[in-house]
Order: sequence, then C-alpha cells, then structure tokens
Amino acid sequence: MSLTNRKKNNLVPEPALRRMPCYLAYLKLAQKEGLKHISSTLIARDMGVDPTQVTKDLSYTSIVGKTRVGYEVEPLIGVLENFLGFTVVDEAYLFGVGSLGKALLHDHGLKQFGLKVVAAFDVDPEVVGKTIEGVPIYHFEELVKMHEETAKIGILTVPVDKAQDVANKLVEVGIKAIWNFTPVRIKVDDEVVVQNTSLYAHLAVMFNRMKSE
Amino acid sequence: MSLTNRKKNNLVPEPALRRMPCYLAYLKLAQKEGLKHISSTLIARDMGVDPTQVTKDLSYTSIVGKTRVGYEVEPLIGVLENFLGFTVVDEAYLFGVGSLGKALLHDHGLKQFGLKVVAAFDVDPEVVGKTIEGVPIYHFEELVKMHEETAKIGILTVPVDKAQDVANKLVEVGIKAIWNFTPVRIKVDDEVVVQNTSLYAHLAVMFNRMKSE
Repeated sequence: MSLTNRKKNNLVPEPALRRMPCYLAYLKLAQKEGLKHISSTLIARDMGVDPTQVTKDLSYTSIVGKTRVGYEVEPLIGVLENFLGFTVVDEAYLFGVGSLGKALLHDHGLKQFGLKVVAAFDVDPEVVGKTIEGVPIYHFEELVKMHEETAKIGILTVPVDKAQDVANKLVEVGIKAIWNFTPVRIKVDDEVVVQNTSLYAHLAVMFNRMKSE
Repeated sequence: MSLTNRKKNNLVPEPALRRMPCYLAYLKLAQKEGLKHISSTLIARDMGVDPTQVTKDLSYTSIVGKTRVGYEVEPLIGVLENFLGFTVVDEAYLFGVGSLGKALLHDHGLKQFGLKVVAAFDVDPEVVGKTIEGVPIYHFEELVKMHEETAKIGILTVPVDKAQDVANKLVEVGIKAIWNFTPVRIKVDDEVVVQNTSLYAHLAVMFNRMKSE
C-alpha cells in the first residue's frame, strides 16, 4: 500500500467530521446549563443520532467516556476544538469580492473558528484599493508579488467562468487548500485540498424537498 | 406502503441534487463558448464524475440525450433551472441579524437562485428598525403579527443557544422550511423541511484534510 493510500485510509470520514462541530455546539450549551458530565446516550438522544455513532465519532479525537459517568464536558470541548483546528488561526486570501465574497468578509464567525482572511483580491476598480472589515483588497495581479508570505488557504468566490483559471493561479503561488464556493468542480493536483461549499446546491436540495412534502 | 413512504422513496437523492447546480454552471459555460450539443461523456470528463452517473442524474429531470448527438445545451439549461426551483422566486424571512445573518443579506446571489429575503428579525436594538440591502429588520416579537403573510422559508442564523426556541416559533407561525446555518441539530416536525448548512463544519473538514496531506 502506498503512503498516500495509507493516509487516505486513515482519514476521519467526512460525515463524522461534519457532525463534530454539532457536538461541540451542543456541549457548549450543556456546559452553559451547568453540566459537568454527559453520556453518549444523552448526546445521541438530543442530537437524533445513534449512541454508538456518537461514541465512534468522538473516539477519533482519542477521548473516551467513562462507564456510568460519561464524558467530562469541559475537557471534551477543549479536545474537540483542538481536533477540529478551531484553536489555531490559519490565514486565508479571498478571491472575488463580489456579492458572496463581500458577505464572507463581513462574517466574523470565521475568525472564531480559526480562519482569518488577511487579504482579498479582485480586478474590479470599484473595490480594488478599498478595505472591508479591515481586510485590504488588492488587484489580482498583485498576488504574485505576495509570493513569499502567501497564506495557505484560498477562498474562491469568483464568477463561474473564472473559477478554474483563478484556482490554477492559486496553486501556482503555493496555496495548499481551496475553499470553493463556486458551483464549478475545479481540477487541481491531488495534493491540494478542495472543500466545495455551494450554498446554491443546498438551496436546490431544500426547494426539492419542499416540493416533495 | 404508506403515502409518506412512497413519497420518500421517490425523492431524488441528495448527492444527485447537489451535483445538478454544478452541471448547470458547467452547461452555462459551455453555452458561452458556443456549444449547441454536449455528450454525457464530455460532461463527465470535465466534471470528474462517471458518465453513467451524469446520465442518471440528468434523467431525474426527465430529459434524455440523443445517441451520438448528446444533449441540446440550451433546453437542458432551462430544464435544469426549472427542476432545481431557481426560476420561481420563494420568499424567506431571516432570523438573527448577527455577523452571518448580515453577510447573507449582502449576498445578491440568493435572489438569482430563487430565494428572496423579504424581512429579517432580531432582538438587538442596534439593528431593529434598520434596513440592510433594502430588507427591513423587525423585532422578533413582531413576527406573530405577520402571520398571514408569512414567507414559507426561514433562514436561521441566530446564536446557538437560541436556535431551537426560534425554530419552534417559526414552525408555529407556519414556516414550512428552515435553512439552518447554526451547528445545532434542531428538532421539528417531520413535515418541516430542514436544510443544514454549517460553514464551520465545512471548515473543520478542510482543516482536517490539510493536516492529513
């Protein structure tokens, strides 16, 4: 088995990773209510998942509950936050300061979860040179000059017909992960992490389910 | 088999629905480049999926490609937009005009995809009474007064500890679908459609994959 395959097989499954921030939010509420310990059964009941799934999901963090007592709430919160990478701040560049790009610059929540946008790029003279929420907006051509201090994450909110070209450029300057908000399935080297988040795809699912009710 | 079960079994699978806006974006690019016809093989190659999957996904719209010729691009775009519900405008209320709520009000993209936010609600005197991008912000208590003209969709961007309470209230006033941006797994009647979109869950997946590289 190649190293890459071994690594891939050891990956925490995406559904488990997606549930973890839900556990985290739930545990913080429980802590607020004064709970010191919590059982996987209670978490499972309140979150509408299977208790064995809760145990399995949380075991990826290498924390284990104690029989009868369950998990200690406070340490579990800390372990989860660390495990999810929310306690270390990663810097990001944002590409495409259109409507959605602007919206994301307005969202302080990202910083709380460890993502700090340090610069944004566009080609529109209307926005280049300005700042939004303290984030300076540069012309896209200035990206190459920033080479040496390149952030590792690129947030992609460009128009659909620019998505692949801009993605290629990002990889060229050393971006290691692309958070792709466009509906375009961009093609990049396997080593580059691509996280697709199309709000409109979620909208499509919701509309469809509404029609089916 | 009960009606509900039959309906559920007839649902278009979520992964297929999520891929459809990607096909749509791809087809619009192809159209821009002057393509009149396109084969499932070409779509599949460019999008990195299996050709049989493309054929199957698109068959849910009841459109079929012709042998050798493939799909006609323009009609397929129209059919997909209709099928995904992007051509009809649905009205929505937004709950919680914090950082993420404000961000979503700034995103014009939603309207292009058929979702129009007509009012927002919060309890913070700093925002109540103001408008953002033309959307008026009311006090949450005024929601009950809007009863008869209630939008069918509620966008949930409230703080974690308010998510369940607000969701209950929305269902009470007749909201049929909740687009839940909080990491809380809200509990509502089965007839209410819940679409979970936690940006921070996607962030967690991306951080994890970056560590695994």
